[in-house]
Amino acid sequence: MMALPEENAGEEAPDAMAAAEEEAAAAVESVAGESSGKTGGDRPISTILIVIAMQTEALPLVAKFGLIEDADGSTFPKGVPWVRYHGTYKGLRIDLVWPGKDIILGVDSVGTVSSALLTFASIQALKPDLIINAGTAGGFKAKGACIRDVYLPSHVAFHDRRIPIPVFDLYGIGSRQTFSTPNLLKEVNLKVGRLSTGNSLDMSPQDEASILANDATIKDMEGAAVAYVADLLSVPAVFVKAVTDIVDGDKPTAEEFMQNLIAVTAALDQAVTEVVDFINGKSLHEL
Amino acid sequence: MMALPEENAGEEAPDAMAAAEEEAAAAVESVAGESSGKTGGDRPISTILIVIAMQTEALPLVAKFGLIEDADGSTFPKGVPWVRYHGTYKGLRIDLVWPGKDIILGVDSVGTVSSALLTFASIQALKPDLIINAGTAGGFKAKGACIRDVYLPSHVAFHDRRIPIPVFDLYGIGSRQTFSTPNLLKEVNLKVGRLSTGNSLDMSPQDEASILANDATIKDMEGAAVAYVADLLSVPAVFVKAVTDIVDGDKPTAEEFMQNLIAVTAALDQAVTEVVDFINGKSLHEL
Repeated sequence: MMALPEENAGEEAPDAMAAAEEEAAAAVESVAGESSGKTGGDRPISTILIVIAMQTEALPLVAKFGLIEDADGSTFPKGVPWVRYHGTYKGLRIDLVWPGKDIILGVDSVGTVSSALLTFASIQALKPDLIINAGTAGGFKAKGACIRDVYLPSHVAFHDRRIPIPVFDLYGIGSRQTFSTPNLLKEVNLKVGRLSTGNSLDMSPQDEASILANDATIKDMEGAAVAYVADLLSVPAVFVKAVTDIVDGDKPTAEEFMQNLIAVTAALDQAVTEVVDFINGKSLHEL
Repeated sequence: MMALPEENAGEEAPDAMAAAEEEAAAAVESVAGESSGKTGGDRPISTILIVIAMQTEALPLVAKFGLIEDADGSTFPKGVPWVRYHGTYKGLRIDLVWPGKDIILGVDSVGTVSSALLTFASIQALKPDLIINAGTAGGFKAKGACIRDVYLPSHVAFHDRRIPIPVFDLYGIGSRQTFSTPNLLKEVNLKVGRLSTGNSLDMSPQDEASILANDATIKDMEGAAVAYVADLLSVPAVFVKAVTDIVDGDKPTAEEFMQNLIAVTAALDQAVTEVVDFINGKSLHEL
């Protein structure tokens, strides 16, 4: 599409539009809070799906949980590079998926489209009780982020989907609350903040303005897309994001990443393990 | 992800990187050209899937082809707003899908994530021989586009996925050739140009630079994502895009759209019908 929708184009008065927009925004917050309890909140969680964008982020957790790669490749359609690892860790069934290497270019299939597709197909095939989207992120020191910090974001939103038409703008931003886990936060030492997602590794002035508007402390390339799909299919989702670089710092992202990769991967690994250990044996309502 | 991949970060010499990148770019063009003939190129096309982002773009074609809405809703998972129309037009099975209205906000679910998910689920459920992604687009007068022009793009690419790391940059751009249809182009009066896709309705300076680098004549919000999924699942795809507004002109997009909507929808309707009439009874190799 590259056009105004008929029903929203210039017919309504500005006041009516503002009211509709406020109402819609309230509805988003409200429904997002409610939508995550549909999959049997009272029984113990029996199966979790961990979605990770990059191989280097995924492999330490595969080893940690003793998972094995899907041998027959029947989980996903023929032709896709998506990889599934699975196993049972302390009695909990864990599926860990990553989108694999691009078939032609050989690099990790990062970004919103791949992670949305992978999350969709994995939910359909594996029916998880809970999704954990884990990975690295850039952090904003102006919002208190430091290298190695691990966040459990309270909200996710997009910063590169600008649609300046009333209500469409909210759809583009796609802000949603993540699944609320007050007890997990008490138990596991993770920081809380908002996550903003976009398909670029760099940050344009427009992205920066949107990230500020999203009140984000960290920035990644997948989170809000995973959250969108999880909400669409009513599966609760939490996000564990470890800071590899300071976006508003003075070091180049690439250099800072190389310096911090080992320590940050270890911190991510540790945090995801603590989250999984806490989840194990509990119901959704107990998180 | 928000980081350099271990294997690509600063290890290789610039020359080796440039060579790898050239090789990768050549592979993209080559494989994209070959990948579209896998689904039985010699037998007549029996079923096509039309993917459209907005209801206002979809309904005239639903009427034109005499399609009916999927009554039992079993094509897609419970909870998604996606809509399927289907029917037989002159002996050809047609499925027309659009991503529906956002469940909370009520606006068309535009953009790359929704269209990628819808295309993926539709291919899985309906096994089409060919995909047609139809819709409206912005055009660049500097590249010869005029209001009401209808394009059959030769290539698609993204303009809002900037990943400034060798090879990852190519993955982000995601340039691919569309399915080649030399006979269709001789028969049906459509313009040829390159399509660039992004999730924003507006155009930032960074988007503009990428669109220029993509050598694009038209700009939409879904095409390259539909192409990515179609390639992933080896289904040939063509794109029919009608120009509603001139991006590099002096009129505001919204105003121009309202002035041109009726005429452009009619032109799109006409073009898609001509394309479908030409396809009907032919094999993929005859297009």
